[in-house]
Amino acid sequence: MDKDLILLGHGSGGTLSHQLLDDLIVPTLSGIPPAEQNDAAVLVMEGRRLAFTTDAYVVDPVFFPGGNIGSLAVNGTVNDLAMMGARPLFLSAALIVEEGFSREELAGILRTMREAADRAHVRIVTGDTKVVPRGKADRIFITTSGVGILEHDLEIAGNGARPGDKVIVSGTIGDHGIAVLAAREGLELETAIRSDCAPLNGLVTEMLQEGEAIHVLRDPTRGGVATTLKEIARQSQVGITLREEALPFDPAVQGVCAILGLDPLYVANEGKLLAVVAPERAEGILARMREHPLGSSAAIIGEVTGEAAGRVELETVVGGRRGVEMLAGEQLPRIC
Amino acid sequence: MDKDLILLGHGSGGTLSHQLLDDLIVPTLSGIPPAEQNDAAVLVMEGRRLAFTTDAYVVDPVFFPGGNIGSLAVNGTVNDLAMMGARPLFLSAALIVEEGFSREELAGILRTMREAADRAHVRIVTGDTKVVPRGKADRIFITTSGVGILEHDLEIAGNGARPGDKVIVSGTIGDHGIAVLAAREGLELETAIRSDCAPLNGLVTEMLQEGEAIHVLRDPTRGGVATTLKEIARQSQVGITLREEALPFDPAVQGVCAILGLDPLYVANEGKLLAVVAPERAEGILARMREHPLGSSAAIIGEVTGEAAGRVELETVVGGRRGVEMLAGEQLPRIC
Repeated sequence: MDKDLILLGHGSGGTLSHQLLDDLIVPTLSGIPPAEQNDAAVLVMEGRRLAFTTDAYVVDPVFFPGGNIGSLAVNGTVNDLAMMGARPLFLSAALIVEEGFSREELAGILRTMREAADRAHVRIVTGDTKVVPRGKADRIFITTSGVGILEHDLEIAGNGARPGDKVIVSGTIGDHGIAVLAAREGLELETAIRSDCAPLNGLVTEMLQEGEAIHVLRDPTRGGVATTLKEIARQSQVGITLREEALPFDPAVQGVCAILGLDPLYVANEGKLLAVVAPERAEGILARMREHPLGSSAAIIGEVTGEAAGRVELETVVGGRRGVEMLAGEQLPRIC
Repeated sequence: MDKDLILLGHGSGGTLSHQLLDDLIVPTLSGIPPAEQNDAAVLVMEGRRLAFTTDAYVVDPVFFPGGNIGSLAVNGTVNDLAMMGARPLFLSAALIVEEGFSREELAGILRTMREAADRAHVRIVTGDTKVVPRGKADRIFITTSGVGILEHDLEIAGNGARPGDKVIVSGTIGDHGIAVLAAREGLELETAIRSDCAPLNGLVTEMLQEGEAIHVLRDPTRGGVATTLKEIARQSQVGITLREEALPFDPAVQGVCAILGLDPLYVANEGKLLAVVAPERAEGILARMREHPLGSSAAIIGEVTGEAAGRVELETVVGGRRGVEMLAGEQLPRIC
């Protein structure tokens, strides 16, 4: 491992990504301290709070069951805004296309983007298209950025978890990553696994009716549920205990993970959120979430503790406990 | 030429780019009509006007005299906001990095981005980093998006040119494209040609003191001065006459263009703007521009006419006239 070169793992969302971000990228570009890094920046303009975010999408393959790079790019950015409690309003789309890419496939991706935007009630208002020579990019990369507005005074951020809070996940874990992996590797599955790629802003709007009981919202994309909870534990300086028996999984996803030796807690989701909420309101929030189509399998999966700041532990089904770390290398490259 | 595939020319900024945008991308994603397409979208949020824009940068080589992909990405997005008369405030940066890229070069690019942002008085507040396997991208691509605020009621847009208006360019034409070309091809030049890459928001602030005399602002990047003026002529449904003898060139750039058979009117600029202004205020605006370091070579280069809507003509030094069209294919790929 050459420490002078950028490695695949630097894009994993896990430990290496955090090192690159914390040691180089964030201090150089912005100076925002790690505890204040969230899925989107909150900007104050003329007394109003706006959220602003960006993500580059390089998923391979470009088309997969349940979506394509276009729906991923729209929903991913919508979700990053929603995780700040913002109402997503406007998106930009910048395409980098490899010379020789099929115009018909491009048209299909663009149509999916429009459909995803319409579904999420956002508008794609500006864009850019670059074409690079054959072999200089892999088919198509899409970067979306988004602007939303915070219509409340709540402070929802990664450093908001408090001892005693409950941890909720909005549905089954690991569907997106395994759907993309299966499509890429041409796995023959008895039950097709579809990406969960979806816009979470509608679900968040329902949840925000519970107001200040919502302390943290995060979508566990790259690095999965484990890495995202580890980030929250560090930012909030709390411990988090997960109960394995409470984790919701699609049995087909669990089966593929077992066969391939993958831990689904590290597999990316693209239509799920983690919420850290006040304990006395947790059941009410859960009930609200379950009424929404994207929250029907929501579950309380753990608690925040005041011990061992930054530590995430899993209580296994058989009663053991093990520490959960961030994704170390790169489990599944180019998953988003 | 296979019409079912995406070609390099579709990223040129010229005729093929416009066809792809007008026939496929814009109707599918947004439905914004061509006459209303500008360097940035203007959004109305809570009664305030914001500008929002994005651009992907794929320049080859990544480092060139006068800048690198990082300064280009910051200044380009700052300039797109400034061309709407907006004050640029916040930027996002999404990096797509090829596995094996040098960490030191990445650090250099990031430092340049920060310096460019500081110079332009904007903050980089959010970002994303993806890494793709070796051979799946060419070193590094950067997409920046930007948010700015319109602090006035002026309507500055591509459809604002009126017969009688004067056309001003803020300085010498073609420097960026030729600097990148020379670096890419390893041309040995007696005089080094440097990219003009610079943030134009300060110059625009000065110009905006002339208020409603400023009808159109555009930065002639991909496709150059010729293509940008053609866009303005079409959007405003006017003719534009350029006087060749008035066009400011760096003699070194002119020399390289003559040797290589390139028309500098189609070569990209990254620190220049075109302004279409009310005739009675043109000299005053020009004087203001010349007092600014980035406008010291500004010149009135032509007039808007009421004849031949959409047509741009060049009055040559010897008194002839020729029509100026958009860039047809791709003169210099990956110039930005």
